[in-house]
Amino acid sequence: VFDVKWDAVAAEKGGYEHFMLKEIHEQPKALRDTMLGRLKDGSVVLEEVDLTLEQLARINKVYIVACGTAWHAGLVGKTLIERWAHLPVEVDIASEFRYRGPIIDDHTLVIVISQSGETADTLAALREAKNRGARVVAVTNVVGSTVSREAHDVIFTWAGPEIAVASTKAYITQLEGMVMLGLYLAQVKGTLPQEKIGEIITALKLIPEQAQEVLNQEDLIKELAQSFVKVEDAFFIGRSLDWAVAMEGALKLKEISYIHAEAYAAGELKHGTLALVTEETPVIALATQRDVYDKTISNVKEVKARDARVIGLTYKGNTNMAKSVDHVIYVPETIDELAPLLTVIPLQLLSYYVSVARGCDVDKPRNLAKSVTVE
Amino acid sequence: VFDVKWDAVAAEKGGYEHFMLKEIHEQPKALRDTMLGRLKDGSVVLEEVDLTLEQLARINKVYIVACGTAWHAGLVGKTLIERWAHLPVEVDIASEFRYRGPIIDDHTLVIVISQSGETADTLAALREAKNRGARVVAVTNVVGSTVSREAHDVIFTWAGPEIAVASTKAYITQLEGMVMLGLYLAQVKGTLPQEKIGEIITALKLIPEQAQEVLNQEDLIKELAQSFVKVEDAFFIGRSLDWAVAMEGALKLKEISYIHAEAYAAGELKHGTLALVTEETPVIALATQRDVYDKTISNVKEVKARDARVIGLTYKGNTNMAKSVDHVIYVPETIDELAPLLTVIPLQLLSYYVSVARGCDVDKPRNLAKSVTVE
Repeated sequence: VFDVKWDAVAAEKGGYEHFMLKEIHEQPKALRDTMLGRLKDGSVVLEEVDLTLEQLARINKVYIVACGTAWHAGLVGKTLIERWAHLPVEVDIASEFRYRGPIIDDHTLVIVISQSGETADTLAALREAKNRGARVVAVTNVVGSTVSREAHDVIFTWAGPEIAVASTKAYITQLEGMVMLGLYLAQVKGTLPQEKIGEIITALKLIPEQAQEVLNQEDLIKELAQSFVKVEDAFFIGRSLDWAVAMEGALKLKEISYIHAEAYAAGELKHGTLALVTEETPVIALATQRDVYDKTISNVKEVKARDARVIGLTYKGNTNMAKSVDHVIYVPETIDELAPLLTVIPLQLLSYYVSVARGCDVDKPRNLAKSVTVE
Repeated sequence: VFDVKWDAVAAEKGGYEHFMLKEIHEQPKALRDTMLGRLKDGSVVLEEVDLTLEQLARINKVYIVACGTAWHAGLVGKTLIERWAHLPVEVDIASEFRYRGPIIDDHTLVIVISQSGETADTLAALREAKNRGARVVAVTNVVGSTVSREAHDVIFTWAGPEIAVASTKAYITQLEGMVMLGLYLAQVKGTLPQEKIGEIITALKLIPEQAQEVLNQEDLIKELAQSFVKVEDAFFIGRSLDWAVAMEGALKLKEISYIHAEAYAAGELKHGTLALVTEETPVIALATQRDVYDKTISNVKEVKARDARVIGLTYKGNTNMAKSVDHVIYVPETIDELAPLLTVIPLQLLSYYVSVARGCDVDKPRNLAKSVTVE
């Protein structure tokens, strides 16, 4: 049994009804704290990561290994690292990774993500990877955790203690960790022009403030949540990075409201699952990624044709999506790779208010533990 | 619009109430036809595949690209090809693959799987891969289809015309195609001892007959299906190859019975989705893979601890699983890599009889088309 010693004062609810709501609201601060001192003069400085160009030149494969919400952060990480650092990345669920015999040697970089730093399957994957000669980078929220002690390199997320079982601020800082790690790798490898890195950093610095803008729409989302009281099924769709966030949105709703929510790659829905979509099924459609925007809207129209109620999620300033859906939630404009840092927030708020409206135990959902230290 | 000309006689229901049931029962024959002439003297002969050792030595990455059920066959293919031919494989949903900018060049082998050979996203992926210099192998059921004409190499599945929207015999022969392709690649590359290849081939030749044995349990499964009449949610769990089949089992149930079924890697359930499991939730647990059997049973016990009704699926002769679950469905023993060819059959029958019991339109589920020739 792992014994977590949280600061009793920091762990109080601070006027919020639930830890989860408090933690959702702490995200702008968590995002700010996690980038603090790491974005200097247009480049990324990660103190406890020490990968040289020589070391990276040896790497021909990256695995990201995690469970649950952290795995969803890894899915975003894959896209960013492949796009920016041109390294092939595979994302694995830790409980599968351990037993499937992946090819790991000293040409492999393994990135493990774990809020607690004690997740049993993730820790076992880390140890196996090290034994086989891989370089291991950990992304974790707990200083002194086993994962942070055993990895070669560490990116601490500075989310502070997370008490609610459903992860929010830990996830968002894991995403931020993925962004910074992706930039770091691109910087060392020289795969992105300095100017482009500077642009991304400038956009990243705006995120905490933009996250606050999203939080300011709380009342709208609370109102929307009331229509989910009697809902038993919901789908979250999106393409590319929107799909990864859709998975996290679906998991949140599952965990705390017991609605059977499921995420789908928007283009895949018609290969079977569309059969489940009726006028009683809300569909949350994420459409921020500009390169697949039109394709996503086509899929939204397929769903609308089955009379589903569709809630869109896109950038402020988009006047197009409202024509195809029933409601639209807007997030401030940013570069597409950073959109997950904003789009996840309304999905967290939606889950929270749906859970409250349904009278569920928000902070301690049935059957679940905060950190899974058994296999 | 693509115009499929089926043989009118072959397309009749032949005494079965639905095409789907007829096609489920045609699987032993489809399996036999698909291996006909391809397993000779302990090795695999694929007439329309011509990959030499020199060509394979160039390949450093394999992508399997497909949609829906065919994508599930690809997930099995990944494990087989990695395990037997030691090539790194990534499986992509076609609608995602096209837009995510995967690294493709003349060191890439792309395997596309499409029953109709006309699936729009899969076809577009094939064309893109060819343009970028990749070698493309197609697995398809329709001679003369666009996919079969445009790929460099083809493995035809000899399932015959499939009329029901929910794929059964096409899927099982796609799995068989993956087995033969995995063996072929291992044979050319010399990554499996000849003796081991011989053993697998011997086991594969038994599969049609063993598939018939599974079909002979139809009445038992029909009876079990009656308990799903009022069910609205179900989970399918398994590890490794069992997980891939779990996905197909869940999709079948979704497509034709409108039950919200979802598959999970058995070790991942406790990272969130376990919150949805109550005594009203049937859980179908696949446990054939010997290397992860004990771990799977641990996960089954977690689910049982939440009072879920668990239906196990394992090899005949296993006397252990019955102690942990409510019902067990048995399939004949085979080598683990071939288990998907048997375990999927009871899941197809279960979906079929649940659909009938719920009064759904088995062969033409709402909202779905047989082959998706739009994006």
